[in-house]
Amino acid sequence: MAKVYNFSAGPAVLPHQVLAEAQSEMLDWHGSGMCVMEMSHRGKEFMEIIHDAEHDLRGLMGIPANYKVLFLQGGASQQFAQVPLNLLGERDSVDIVNTGHWSKLAIKEARRYAKVNVAASSEDRNFAYVPDEAGWQRDPKAAYLHYTSNETIGGLQFPFVPQSLPDVPLVCDMSSDFLSREVDVSQFGLIYAGAQKNIGPSGLVVLIVREDLLGKARADLPTMLNYQVHADADSMYNTPPTFPIYISGLVFKWLKEQGGVKSIATRNEEKAGLLNHVIESSEGFYHTHIDAPFRSRMNVVFRLKDEGLEETFLLEARKNGLIQLKGHRAVGGIRASIYNAMPIEGVKSLANFMQDFARIHG
Amino acid sequence: MAKVYNFSAGPAVLPHQVLAEAQSEMLDWHGSGMCVMEMSHRGKEFMEIIHDAEHDLRGLMGIPANYKVLFLQGGASQQFAQVPLNLLGERDSVDIVNTGHWSKLAIKEARRYAKVNVAASSEDRNFAYVPDEAGWQRDPKAAYLHYTSNETIGGLQFPFVPQSLPDVPLVCDMSSDFLSREVDVSQFGLIYAGAQKNIGPSGLVVLIVREDLLGKARADLPTMLNYQVHADADSMYNTPPTFPIYISGLVFKWLKEQGGVKSIATRNEEKAGLLNHVIESSEGFYHTHIDAPFRSRMNVVFRLKDEGLEETFLLEARKNGLIQLKGHRAVGGIRASIYNAMPIEGVKSLANFMQDFARIHG
Repeated sequence: MAKVYNFSAGPAVLPHQVLAEAQSEMLDWHGSGMCVMEMSHRGKEFMEIIHDAEHDLRGLMGIPANYKVLFLQGGASQQFAQVPLNLLGERDSVDIVNTGHWSKLAIKEARRYAKVNVAASSEDRNFAYVPDEAGWQRDPKAAYLHYTSNETIGGLQFPFVPQSLPDVPLVCDMSSDFLSREVDVSQFGLIYAGAQKNIGPSGLVVLIVREDLLGKARADLPTMLNYQVHADADSMYNTPPTFPIYISGLVFKWLKEQGGVKSIATRNEEKAGLLNHVIESSEGFYHTHIDAPFRSRMNVVFRLKDEGLEETFLLEARKNGLIQLKGHRAVGGIRASIYNAMPIEGVKSLANFMQDFARIHG
Repeated sequence: MAKVYNFSAGPAVLPHQVLAEAQSEMLDWHGSGMCVMEMSHRGKEFMEIIHDAEHDLRGLMGIPANYKVLFLQGGASQQFAQVPLNLLGERDSVDIVNTGHWSKLAIKEARRYAKVNVAASSEDRNFAYVPDEAGWQRDPKAAYLHYTSNETIGGLQFPFVPQSLPDVPLVCDMSSDFLSREVDVSQFGLIYAGAQKNIGPSGLVVLIVREDLLGKARADLPTMLNYQVHADADSMYNTPPTFPIYISGLVFKWLKEQGGVKSIATRNEEKAGLLNHVIESSEGFYHTHIDAPFRSRMNVVFRLKDEGLEETFLLEARKNGLIQLKGHRAVGGIRASIYNAMPIEGVKSLANFMQDFARIHG
């Protein structure tokens, strides 16, 4: 096995320690004689696993007691429908901020169930920035305001948390920067995150919702899409995705050992800083169109001045064990996803490679 | 680690060979340097995994070319809504056969979207039998007929495939006997199965649907619940549950090595026969209320004449390494789930234990 650093945008690299632990207990979890995949979800062993996962997540994020934590399926894409179908209640409109690919999908799906007011958009400059909050056109009667804290494809990240108006809760798609920096959960009505970036394997979405927002689901909503049903059953209404929950629980324990969210946030700043420094000091060999304050710490997206060299860049990177660096097909270029589990050594290795490549081809 | 045999109804025992293989390639799948959980779902490695899984499943079941195979999330419970919401089209009613717990849940959810005609029911005798098909009250204008081929909780299994009326396709919840015996897929319009019994880990549902039934989804259906969307995207509309799909693919390969579905069906008959023989020859110490032709080969459900002894039975069984034998809380008693992956040695061990226990306590 060649040592590789995997910059995939998701599913993404997991902590080596987590995979090694999962490997060591694959045939026998804690003397039970079973793999976690073989356990009844209602047995005491798995109940312990899901309880610990929720407990550790609550500790890491400081989730207040009046918020439910749900382990669901269907990914963030399903939430684009579930959020309006569960939260609209008596209202008929929602506010959404448009900052790129995932915001646009959230808007498209929400439009099927509600009037959507695009409170702000940065599409005029190809999503290079987050519009200044002072200029947002908000509707005080909206059921909620939805935003995407990190655009995985565009490489744009909110440096602030929008204001939560009285009676208009904040809803955040935090899929690609969940647990990567400190947030005050009490500012939000609902947070959701697909697991396959900073949490664990795909097939799991974690949802944090303030209890008073439950119970407003549309009457004809499929039972499995109703937050209240899952909240009442502690995510055990039906068989949950047990193995993804188990791996996520191991990731939460690993994150605690790293010093928690505050510590990892400092490291994430440092990691992104290394790559941004190479880009900025490359005299235009590498460039990004994202304005500096809004560059994502999770997905560093850039292009080469000579776009014809990008294939060579990717090939050479792969030869150096730096893989999955190709930008999303919607935007092209290069994308280095450097989530919590990407070690700083991987980022340094990429930074060195970028400098060498620029020297040779510049 | 004590050797145990795990009779859980699901999530359930997996083939040892599959878990050992998953363990051995946990840190490096086929020299990629990545765990399967870390792979982009659109990368060539995972594309190979999902392609092979579908190819092997098609081979095992002889799935005709005009059927799509979809790897979805949400379990069978979500299908209880998705099936009517996708298949009703211009029609307004469906036929459902009621043979127990899971049928009843399917009926309850379908009633939210359609007129439900219960074409037959065995509730009059506590679901001890499957009603004779000659007496079913079918509606020739129903959008489909839905049945549950194996009732996991009740321990009742269809020994036949119902007739597919012209223009009324057959829909089967095959969650707990999928791949356990030969079926002619061309008799069905749609088959679905939660993975966590005979396929792989929870968090995955496999759906086989005849192509001409696609494209009738209700206009306001959430995009993620629309079969057509997933069919058009080859189950890659959004990030699928990659690790459960990988494990399922390993199970399909294992099943091919076992000689395929026909072979495993013979072994399943033999396994169920061993336990039924002990029950029938116990002079009433053990008994089951299910009529003989309809006893499940997957979930052998029985009681002790002295129900007060059942706790002792479960405790003693556990001491002998025979675990997760407790019946579902809805029905009580004992349930031995003996899916494909349960080795005959496990069933023999249970049969011997049952005989010894009856001798001591009889």
